[in-house]
Amino acid sequence: MTTPAPARDRATRKVDTLSMLAQPSVDAWVATASAMGEPHLVPLSLAWTADRLVIAVERGSATARNIDASGTARLAVGPTRDVVLIDATLERSVGVDDDAAIGRAYAAQADWDPRGLTAYVFLVLRPLRVQAWRESNELRGRVLMRDGDWLA
Amino acid sequence: MTTPAPARDRATRKVDTLSMLAQPSVDAWVATASAMGEPHLVPLSLAWTADRLVIAVERGSATARNIDASGTARLAVGPTRDVVLIDATLERSVGVDDDAAIGRAYAAQADWDPRGLTAYVFLVLRPLRVQAWRESNELRGRVLMRDGDWLA
Repeated sequence: MTTPAPARDRATRKVDTLSMLAQPSVDAWVATASAMGEPHLVPLSLAWTADRLVIAVERGSATARNIDASGTARLAVGPTRDVVLIDATLERSVGVDDDAAIGRAYAAQADWDPRGLTAYVFLVLRPLRVQAWRESNELRGRVLMRDGDWLA
Repeated sequence: MTTPAPARDRATRKVDTLSMLAQPSVDAWVATASAMGEPHLVPLSLAWTADRLVIAVERGSATARNIDASGTARLAVGPTRDVVLIDATLERSVGVDDDAAIGRAYAAQADWDPRGLTAYVFLVLRPLRVQAWRESNELRGRVLMRDGDWLA
């Protein structure tokens, strides 16, 4: 066990979080739940644009069905010791060729481009609660956004 | 975009998976769902012993409550481009000082030791379905275990 770095303050964590979300080729773990209470979890490419999370999913996938039914997902970005955890709500589903700005933003950040693939749909998710921590000394103060508003 | 390595065969993926699960200080993303269909997701230290996954959780935590109610969790180990995904069922809950073998195995592999902390409980999870892949060329053949039986 090594001694952890000093805990970051909230403003620093917000900067680090936004920087992590804006990275090229960033992936998220996307957790969803079925109406029957079955957990689902997959890694998906992520885009961060206009304060929204964008993922591209196959229309018939468990992730698409679960988010469509529940309106919610919980996403994790970063390794397990430099975590950003986001509870998000579905703002809208967008056909992959129906919103040029979303399509461009996604293709520019992700390392693939679903435009033209009609089996896919973009889900635009609005973050409601954001938490970020590295080691246990950062558990205190980990909430950066509550009810959709940044606390910092 | 770099050219991915050739797809691993099933036997190689099983070896890699078991090696990943047995690593010291390995963490898992643990996805669970409430009875209301709300997804939950947290990173937790993992132990792999006697073909079972062991996590230590606070008794009142959302993860503990969800697994207690549903009996299931979906765990991810490894980075998003070297994924092991496990659907598991709760075999038993064990007080942190009630099963010496479980306590020893967990403390030996994780980088902390919950023994003596009565707020915690060990959850012993039996894997039912295991998938492993790196890049999209490995999506085919990703199922390594089905209904609790290794296919390799």
